[in-house]
Amino acid sequence: MQGTLPPNNIHFFHDDMNISILGASGYSGAELMKRLLRHPHVQIANVFAHSAAGKRVVEVYPAFKHRTDLVFQEYALDKVRTSDCVFIALPSGEAMDIVPELIDAQIRVIDLGGDFRLKDTVLYNKFYAHVHTAEKYLRNAAYGLPEWNRDAIVCAQLVANPGCYVTSALLPLLPLLKEGIIDPHGIIISSLSGVSGAGRQSSVSFSFTEINESVKAYKAGVHQHTPEIETALRSFSGTDATVTFVPHLIPITRGIYSSMYAHLARNIDTATIRDIYDRYYAEAPFIRVEASHPPEIKHVQGTNFCDIGFTLHEKNEQLIVFSVIDNLLKGAAGQAVQNMNIMFGFAETEGLG
Amino acid sequence: MQGTLPPNNIHFFHDDMNISILGASGYSGAELMKRLLRHPHVQIANVFAHSAAGKRVVEVYPAFKHRTDLVFQEYALDKVRTSDCVFIALPSGEAMDIVPELIDAQIRVIDLGGDFRLKDTVLYNKFYAHVHTAEKYLRNAAYGLPEWNRDAIVCAQLVANPGCYVTSALLPLLPLLKEGIIDPHGIIISSLSGVSGAGRQSSVSFSFTEINESVKAYKAGVHQHTPEIETALRSFSGTDATVTFVPHLIPITRGIYSSMYAHLARNIDTATIRDIYDRYYAEAPFIRVEASHPPEIKHVQGTNFCDIGFTLHEKNEQLIVFSVIDNLLKGAAGQAVQNMNIMFGFAETEGLG
Amino acid sequence: MQGTLPPNNIHFFHDDMNISILGASGYSGAELMKRLLRHPHVQIANVFAHSAAGKRVVEVYPAFKHRTDLVFQEYALDKVRTSDCVFIALPSGEAMDIVPELIDAQIRVIDLGGDFRLKDTVLYNKFYAHVHTAEKYLRNAAYGLPEWNRDAIVCAQLVANPGCYVTSALLPLLPLLKEGIIDPHGIIISSLSGVSGAGRQSSVSFSFTEINESVKAYKAGVHQHTPEIETALRSFSGTDATVTFVPHLIPITRGIYSSMYAHLARNIDTATIRDIYDRYYAEAPFIRVEASHPPEIKHVQGTNFCDIGFTLHEKNEQLIVFSVIDNLLKGAAGQAVQNMNIMFGFAETEGLG
Amino acid sequence: MQGTLPPNNIHFFHDDMNISILGASGYSGAELMKRLLRHPHVQIANVFAHSAAGKRVVEVYPAFKHRTDLVFQEYALDKVRTSDCVFIALPSGEAMDIVPELIDAQIRVIDLGGDFRLKDTVLYNKFYAHVHTAEKYLRNAAYGLPEWNRDAIVCAQLVANPGCYVTSALLPLLPLLKEGIIDPHGIIISSLSGVSGAGRQSSVSFSFTEINESVKAYKAGVHQHTPEIETALRSFSGTDATVTFVPHLIPITRGIYSSMYAHLARNIDTATIRDIYDRYYAEAPFIRVEASHPPEIKHVQGTNFCDIGFTLHEKNEQLIVFSVIDNLLKGAAGQAVQNMNIMFGFAETEGLG
Repeated sequence: MQGTLPPNNIHFFHDDMNISILGASGYSGAELMKRLLRHPHVQIANVFAHSAAGKRVVEVYPAFKHRTDLVFQEYALDKVRTSDCVFIALPSGEAMDIVPELIDAQIRVIDLGGDFRLKDTVLYNKFYAHVHTAEKYLRNAAYGLPEWNRDAIVCAQLVANPGCYVTSALLPLLPLLKEGIIDPHGIIISSLSGVSGAGRQSSVSFSFTEINESVKAYKAGVHQHTPEIETALRSFSGTDATVTFVPHLIPITRGIYSSMYAHLARNIDTATIRDIYDRYYAEAPFIRVEASHPPEIKHVQGTNFCDIGFTLHEKNEQLIVFSVIDNLLKGAAGQAVQNMNIMFGFAETEGLG
Repeated sequence: MQGTLPPNNIHFFHDDMNISILGASGYSGAELMKRLLRHPHVQIANVFAHSAAGKRVVEVYPAFKHRTDLVFQEYALDKVRTSDCVFIALPSGEAMDIVPELIDAQIRVIDLGGDFRLKDTVLYNKFYAHVHTAEKYLRNAAYGLPEWNRDAIVCAQLVANPGCYVTSALLPLLPLLKEGIIDPHGIIISSLSGVSGAGRQSSVSFSFTEINESVKAYKAGVHQHTPEIETALRSFSGTDATVTFVPHLIPITRGIYSSMYAHLARNIDTATIRDIYDRYYAEAPFIRVEASHPPEIKHVQGTNFCDIGFTLHEKNEQLIVFSVIDNLLKGAAGQAVQNMNIMFGFAETEGLG
Repeated sequence: MQGTLPPNNIHFFHDDMNISILGASGYSGAELMKRLLRHPHVQIANVFAHSAAGKRVVEVYPAFKHRTDLVFQEYALDKVRTSDCVFIALPSGEAMDIVPELIDAQIRVIDLGGDFRLKDTVLYNKFYAHVHTAEKYLRNAAYGLPEWNRDAIVCAQLVANPGCYVTSALLPLLPLLKEGIIDPHGIIISSLSGVSGAGRQSSVSFSFTEINESVKAYKAGVHQHTPEIETALRSFSGTDATVTFVPHLIPITRGIYSSMYAHLARNIDTATIRDIYDRYYAEAPFIRVEASHPPEIKHVQGTNFCDIGFTLHEKNEQLIVFSVIDNLLKGAAGQAVQNMNIMFGFAETEGLG
Repeated sequence: MQGTLPPNNIHFFHDDMNISILGASGYSGAELMKRLLRHPHVQIANVFAHSAAGKRVVEVYPAFKHRTDLVFQEYALDKVRTSDCVFIALPSGEAMDIVPELIDAQIRVIDLGGDFRLKDTVLYNKFYAHVHTAEKYLRNAAYGLPEWNRDAIVCAQLVANPGCYVTSALLPLLPLLKEGIIDPHGIIISSLSGVSGAGRQSSVSFSFTEINESVKAYKAGVHQHTPEIETALRSFSGTDATVTFVPHLIPITRGIYSSMYAHLARNIDTATIRDIYDRYYAEAPFIRVEASHPPEIKHVQGTNFCDIGFTLHEKNEQLIVFSVIDNLLKGAAGQAVQNMNIMFGFAETEGLG
């Protein structure tokens, strides 16, 4: 397969590797810095941020004082030629201008944005409302959901880190679809997200006064994560799943709560569902399943865990499934580090404890 | 019908009426006081609160300073014999001990709790987990949803004010069911509630530190408002509706956001749905429908409005419906005042501006 | 005195008066609309907002749906010639371009901004960092603190509505200074403000994610309300008061908490201080003093009250004084309506209940 | 000195040490578990919690799932005889019943509560409102402020971990007092605390609905941390400092913001103050000083840092000093781990990164 590394090219590190981050001044970028600064086998070589170029990291994020002397730079290919891995935390639409030259330069890339998640550029162009310009590099991309795509990630040159909402939907739904527990059609995904999911925003809509003490749904049925959820559900479960996805903005900083509603495809009991999850996620260090009560966002904040709960609603022949993640960790930077660990042969949890 | 007033007994006031409140020290009770103190045709004669008996209202709620000199008292029937209307804002299970003697004494009652909402005591006993002891008074109760039951409310001796979640579900769903737009079976109601909905709580679970920056679903599929929603949907729409209702607790003080998902029963477009709502709620001063974007809690906080929005999801043949209310107003005290206005011939919006 | 109305020109209304609002699309403007729409003697003729000109009010503030059909317009003098009173809720620096023509046109004005609060333009130019261009109209302005300047307000052509922090400091401190209870020098004013005090902001600094779960002091000792506090303290108390004023931004939407620390100028006890406050504010409907415990913001939110508390710290010969207001009401729009009521002969509390 | 360990008894560990935690089910206890589970040289042997005895840690704190299998136990001396160090995170008044037997058993103790911070039991009895019953063990206690008392901590048998507010006041004020920059009398300390500082509370006063969107001062001038601040300021600076300390409760979960106001004792400039801080804290890994802007709580949340800022107010001859800490870390569990690291010869930052 083009786009994956030949086995003898996969270098498993036993000492420090050298990484760079593009778009390091956003929230996901800052979270990447925080985790990678702690990672025992990583040195951050460069942090790039166009709008903050020339500023020290601590000027933009005083929380990093006493932790790093890094300075935000303007990106240039020559600066990353010695990097073993480049993380891209740019808005969707910007990564596709940069990824090709990195791939061509044989540098492994983890893209936290949406540009390389959908193989189908028709879908991309429709939901992202701009034209994909790096179509031929899509075949290089492995979808970065470690619990379902580890083998491809290990040898991928480019990892497309999943969307935050998407991660919260795929992890609980995939075992149920794969086992034929639920009807794959018209699954309802009603999600709540903390405001950091929108990035570092300077708009009235995301000001404290507008968000606090309120809730609003947005992009109901047309959010750009919809085709990503459907594509990944189909690809990993082998079904023709369709979903109705409605995100809501709620007044918390970090966290996603997804409540999912599906029709049961067959008779089943709670214990059997529990067993299925246990079996699928026996080796997954970041998945925690609990049948006795729904999960809570605060249990996963600041962690890379995805907590899953569920309730059988037998009278209506439905299954209600819940999941929570920290949108900046398992929904972005944490999953990216997890992918890096897998790509470079470190323990999957390294830097994420 | 026993339990309604003979027409010549309905007294429409042109000057002040005299009211009393039981359970006045809780959040709904306080909101009732606030609204009724402003009401141009009402005098509050008594406020009863067992736990606060003997204290001035301003000791418990300093916000009432300069607004009232009322003192919380221990309830006794003799103290309310001259009241034209008694509001009961007690926890479910307590009203049924008091309502019978009030009805027998020919005093009109508005109960904000759950004791007289379900005609079926089997359902009551199951979902409220205690036994109903005033079954014979259930026939006296009119269900207090003014937009759908005005005629019964006008002449009712006892009004059962709807549950907060219930109100948020009935108002958007009833026109759709009545017009055959949606499949009545297995309607998903995914609701978010502010913490004041749980009442004035002294438990770790409702402490700031536990609630802040988190979300949790609770009583998924088994919340006591489920049978009330189904009963009222069926009764007012003439369908055999079933629902899957999942409430979530979110870190705001006031407000309910309900997102509802139903299968379309027939082809329809947005304009037609909009017209249906306009037609059903043309005379409803507190219902506001908007097709172009989902509602937001902050638009209704501190008001008696219910804002409704909706989105057609044609690909999956589903209709997504949203509603927001202030749980303490349209979800409790505000709707109770609206009912009082109807019962006693005042303008429906009096005291609620 | 030039700038006040001759007594026979003061028109006390018994029926509706006609008002206009400039800068109506900001938070103070919206709050003015909300209160004036409810005011029994007021008709809102025009709402002006440059950035929103042409939009209906409900497009910008859906909360106003079913309450008003007003449309934001571009301001022009001719549109307000029939207005009895014009409210200006523009950013400081913009009112001084408009007030002169209104005054010249014999229209009474209430300015909620800072342009006409300081008679000393040297102070203005220094603290507001731009040059005052309407100096000769300063003599027309009465300082709009009703509890201390009622007589001037009654007949003023221009009322300069006090700053939010300023109001929270003047009301508790003035009686103490006037009675010689506290040393007027170096009074510490440590204030906390909700985020709506900053206006409708589109900047990262005021985004939810930056503000939530944090606190920051800002402009310590150099905030533009400092000279206003000192000037008004001196003018109304006849002392040469100096203050050290430090505002802090906290994650709430509305409210100001000011904690003030002063040296005692003489021996005094709690009861005597309490008596002084009671005497000074016996006729003030919006001042509530409580000696037994500090005030809380939630008791005044959504109201025009200022709650005051205090604690003697005898060991250190200091007096600790606390006050709370709603920054958008007693700190802005509410006080403006209170001033209008006084200027036009209505009950002081009209529209503010 | 009795109460310190003879040098040959101080065991510096190169491999795992064994610790136990009393009161492990509270917020400080949970934070201790979280940090110590990550600590490379520590094994948690026992976690004691009377109210939760018999429950697994993950039942009370689901966030610990996949991290620990520990079970809360009832405390007994015999269970801790092999522990190298016992942490006590009990409410004040309870530690003094247990510390004596631990000291007598030659076990080193770190007490996070207030029982062994004040050497003067007259002060203790007055401010804590109960009688100290372990007076003779007070001489064993070293005050656990590492930046100022390291030598005593190294060889202490009992470390009294400072109060949260106290830590936030001592760290910025001590260098200023020691250098004679500020007048030691009547220093104003106006502090804001997140709600977790009150512990895991089941009372209406700490419920979300009461705390959210509000602020209140409490125990103004009489908080039990007042004598601790004064005692420690005097002891470490050699002055006769007095303070006026006023805490306020604000709607955030974690963090303390202290704004301090003192009279200047001599002429000084910003650069000199900056130099003093740099000199005093050159070796302190957790102290960060910034002269150019006040600190913000969010920069220290989840960390053991204390950020310090200051502003000269020359006109009033005052110095304004700011500090922020995470009340559960540098204000409690973090500082306790820092003390443990010092006591047992680990790097001071171990487990706190």
